[in-house]
Formats: sequence, C-alpha cells, structure tokens
Amino acid sequence: MDIYRILSAGVPPENGHVRVQCLLFLTLFLCASTSLAQRTPASLAEKLGYSPDAKLLIVHADDLGMTHAVNAASIKGLESGLVTSASMMVPCPWFPEIADYAKNHPDADLGLHLTLTSERVYLRWGPVASKDKVPSLLDPAGYFFLDWSPAAHIEAAEVAVELRAQIERALAMGVRPTHVDSHQYRLFASGKDLFQVLLGVAHEYRFPVFIARDWFADHPYLESSLAPGDIVLDHTVTIDPSVPSEKWVNFYETALRNLQPGVTEFVIHLAFDDEEMRAATRERPTWGSAWRQRDFDYFTSAEFRNLLQQQHIQLITWRELARAAKGK
Amino acid sequence: MDIYRILSAGVPPENGHVRVQCLLFLTLFLCASTSLAQRTPASLAEKLGYSPDAKLLIVHADDLGMTHAVNAASIKGLESGLVTSASMMVPCPWFPEIADYAKNHPDADLGLHLTLTSERVYLRWGPVASKDKVPSLLDPAGYFFLDWSPAAHIEAAEVAVELRAQIERALAMGVRPTHVDSHQYRLFASGKDLFQVLLGVAHEYRFPVFIARDWFADHPYLESSLAPGDIVLDHTVTIDPSVPSEKWVNFYETALRNLQPGVTEFVIHLAFDDEEMRAATRERPTWGSAWRQRDFDYFTSAEFRNLLQQQHIQLITWRELARAAKGK
Repeated sequence: MDIYRILSAGVPPENGHVRVQCLLFLTLFLCASTSLAQRTPASLAEKLGYSPDAKLLIVHADDLGMTHAVNAASIKGLESGLVTSASMMVPCPWFPEIADYAKNHPDADLGLHLTLTSERVYLRWGPVASKDKVPSLLDPAGYFFLDWSPAAHIEAAEVAVELRAQIERALAMGVRPTHVDSHQYRLFASGKDLFQVLLGVAHEYRFPVFIARDWFADHPYLESSLAPGDIVLDHTVTIDPSVPSEKWVNFYETALRNLQPGVTEFVIHLAFDDEEMRAATRERPTWGSAWRQRDFDYFTSAEFRNLLQQQHIQLITWRELARAAKGK
Repeated sequence: MDIYRILSAGVPPENGHVRVQCLLFLTLFLCASTSLAQRTPASLAEKLGYSPDAKLLIVHADDLGMTHAVNAASIKGLESGLVTSASMMVPCPWFPEIADYAKNHPDADLGLHLTLTSERVYLRWGPVASKDKVPSLLDPAGYFFLDWSPAAHIEAAEVAVELRAQIERALAMGVRPTHVDSHQYRLFASGKDLFQVLLGVAHEYRFPVFIARDWFADHPYLESSLAPGDIVLDHTVTIDPSVPSEKWVNFYETALRNLQPGVTEFVIHLAFDDEEMRAATRERPTWGSAWRQRDFDYFTSAEFRNLLQQQHIQLITWRELARAAKGK
C-alpha cells in the first residue's frame, strides 16, 4: 500500500508519457518485490498483522497441574492479564483441577506441557499410557524417571504412545489445547528422533509447537525437521540458577528493555510459596517454591505492567499465533 | 496364674488329707479349664499379654500419601505418641514423601491403605498396575473411579493384580508395612469375592488385615472367609457426617468413656486445614479439610491424653498385634 502511495505521489497527473513510463516502472518494481517476498517470507510479527519492528511478547507459565499452589498462582497470573499463556502437565495429580478451569474458561490460552519426567523427589507421577506400553520411560517403581541420564535409552515409539495418551486424556476431559511444549525441554534437547516424534504427534492433532529460533544453533535438527506451516518464535527468555534472588527483577527488566523486534516467549514458573510447594520442591532451590513466588510477584506487578507500556511491548497469545499460522 | 493363687490360698498347709483332696480338685479343675480354653480361645487382649478386661486402643490415621497436608499432620500425630498407627495410599502423588519417612523411621507403625478409588474431584490418581491389566477399575480418563456405583462391575482378578502392584511398589521403595486395610472400606463392603482377594493377597505377603468383629453382622462373609491365624479386632470407632463439628470432641470423649474391654481401633483422618487441603476436598465437607483438622486437634490434645489415663486405656500398635498373632 505504501509503495502505491509513493509512486502515485511521483506521477504528474497531466503527463501521459511519464505515466506510461511510471506504469512500466511500477510493473517491474512489483515483479521484483514479489520475487523478494518469495525469498524473504513475512515475519511472524507481520503474519500476526503487526509491523516487522513490533515487540511482541508471550508471557508463558509452565508446569500447571503439578501442585495446587502452581495452579492457583498461574490462574491468578492469567487473570491479571499480564501472564498471557500457560501449559498443563497431564500426568500430574492436580491436572483435573486445571483441566476443569480450562473447560470453564475456553478463552484462557492453555496448552499442554507434555511430560516424560517426574523431576521431584517427594511428589511424583507416572505415565498416562499403560505402563507395559512405555517401559523405557519408567523407573523400577513405575514412575517417570526423575530426569533422563545420558545413558538412558528412551524408545521413540514409546514416547509417541505416551504423548498421544496425554493428549487424548486432555481431550476426553474437555480441554482444547492452544499449543504444546515439552517439560524440561526434553523433547527439544534429546536428539532428532524424539523431536520428530513430538512434531509428528503435534501435526496429527494440528497443535502448534513452541519452538524458538534461539535453539537452532545448539540443535540444528530442530530447523531441518520443520514443515512449512510450523511456527518459529524469534526469541525465548528464561531465568536460570545463575541469577541470584536479589537480581531477579533486574534480570527481567534488562530483558524487557533489550527486547528485540519480533515474537519472544518468556518462560516463567509461577507458584505460591506455601507449605505444599515448599514440601514439593524441598530437595533443591532451583525452580523451587521461593523461585516461583518471585516469578509470580514480578509478573503480576505494576512495575512489569508499566515497563511493558514504556517499552511499547505488546502481549500476545498462542491462540493468536495459531490463527495467524493458519491464515485466519 | 490367678487361679493358682486362689487355690493355694485355700489349702491349709498342715493338713495332708485336705491337701490330697485339694490336689485332686486342682487336677480336675485344670482339666476342665483346659477343655474350656479349647472351646473359648484366648482373647486378642490375652494373646497380647493383657488381662481380658484390658481396654486396648489403636489410634489409626488413614489416607497418608494423599496430600502433603495429610502426611505432615499424620507424622506430627504419630510423633506425639497419641496416634499409634497409620496407613499409606501407594497410588497417591505424595506416597514418595511418606514412603521416605517410613524407610527412615522403621519403628513407625505404618501399613498400606490399599486403594482402588480416587474419590476427590480436583486431585486424582490411578492404578499402579499397567492400565490394560485393570480396565474394570478405570474411568474413561484412566483414573480410578471416584467411587464404585452399585452398577460397576469390578473384576476380582484385576483387584488382585492392582493390590499386588501397590504392595510391590511399596516394597521396592523400602517400605515394610505392618498391616493392610482398604480405602473407603471398599474391599470389606463389596462382597465376598473382593474380600477374599484382599485376604488372599494379604496372606501371600503375611500382612495382618484390619478386620473388626463389629462388621460381621452386616457382612457375614467376612467371618466365614477368615483363616485361623487372622487377627480380628473387637471393635472399631469412626466419626461420621451425622456428627456436627461442635459435637466432635464430645463424640470422641463419649466413645472413650464407654470403651469396651478388648482391642478397639479408632479410624481417624488427619490433615492440616491449609490451602492445599481445602482445594483437594472442596467439592464436599465430609472427610474434608476442616474435618481432618478437627481430628488432628483432638487426637494430639492434652484432653485426649488425660482421658486415656483416666479411663485406663492402653495404646497399642499393629506391629504388636502381628507379633502376638505369630506367637512371638
């Protein structure tokens, strides 16, 4: 539209020769720009209807369903309007509580945090699939492994069985997920085979998958596995154990002040620091109870809201991304 | 022992004739009392080494493993010395926490609360066995049923599979159960076949089963199914929804003041009335968060301790019962 306006502005209205020359130029220019567009497709921001330099942010809470304290804090975060999206762990004990919320709040942007590990010591969970169908995922007591050791041999076919079982339980309970991602990034960071299982299952159900361009350098198989319709976020930000608690706010404020144009997802972990959560995470402080309360405090604060406005950052959801990807 | 003392007291030391008569009488009496003993076996109290009119009480907390609030309150109850025994739900999310406690406190009197229902709405659990081995126990989402409707058809063979899976997980996690019982009394009150499965599995592992003579009138198959070595408690007391909260202490005090000689088990439900517990039980008040806090408050109180002393009630454990039953 801008190109037409510029060209039109350059055309003297009373000169036929110049007008013909201009039309010829316009034709050539449009051919060239079409060819350029084929080489550099519209950015995700543009597909969403924003200018390419817009700073778009998904504020995404992980781990819903793990405990009541996670559910309660995440619901409060979502309802503040400052946390825009979240994902739920189907194998976890409190999934029924958050599934009930999802069913009764169909506009809430809730996906599935596909889960194959049970990383806590005192509160644990196992597969949704029948155990004899997924033996490579289980420890001797029948729980998911706390984590996957480098020596663990995880059968890709069993991962597919378990992911489908998690999705089918969610659907059976009335949940309509907006997207899927992977707990502890296991299905992004454990090799091409497992990532392709995740991607294949997500394609079957037409769920967008959380994938960020930031990860391509470390895991080249991510990019090479993608289909043309897959959504790729431009950036992702998540706090890690190197940040001391007193620098928490500073870390997020720096990230927000330096936010790049395009679509960024902040991966955060919300919970109330109460008896349940302290007991559930007591074996180590990382991603623990106090950690999650700090995330809750910052991402529901007036300071965060004000900084978003000051930096002209626009909050978006996975539902918007999925709609844009489908061209709706 | 008392009989010997009474008879001895009746024998004049210096009269031989009388002494012979007395010996004859003693012989006849002992023959008669042996024959009597064969017809009326020693009571459970006597087997434990108490007099037959002793008032012996197991104060037993149910549902450990269900939530952290249940575990924390039950541990505090056990450590007060006033709650003598408890049982753990292996399929529940917080079983690893209480299994860890059991392993590190081998003297704690902890059994298994064998569980085939998942009676809460927002916090749920399913089988320890592979799901395709126990389909009659599962709802469409793969959890245990909330409860068993009269129309439910529960396969006895699948119950056996699931009970063994729960016991094997507990053993694999280092737990050495002192006894077993049945969550929501399902395996006592659902017909002869299921009770015989429970009893058979308990016999395999040599675990005593909580059975009370009080139940025989309603379920005659209980008594007829027992083997000679099975322990039968004389009485059981549990509070029910007909008792209003302001009558809670009164109910228990009345029960204690009227406690009958023999072995009684008080079945109680402990938890702290906190955010987690309120959320876990919010669909109904029965056996809910406030209910369990009331039980905790009474059974750890000085009033309860004093009443035990005043009524000459002696606290015992399942470990003592099992030892007595084995004649050790």
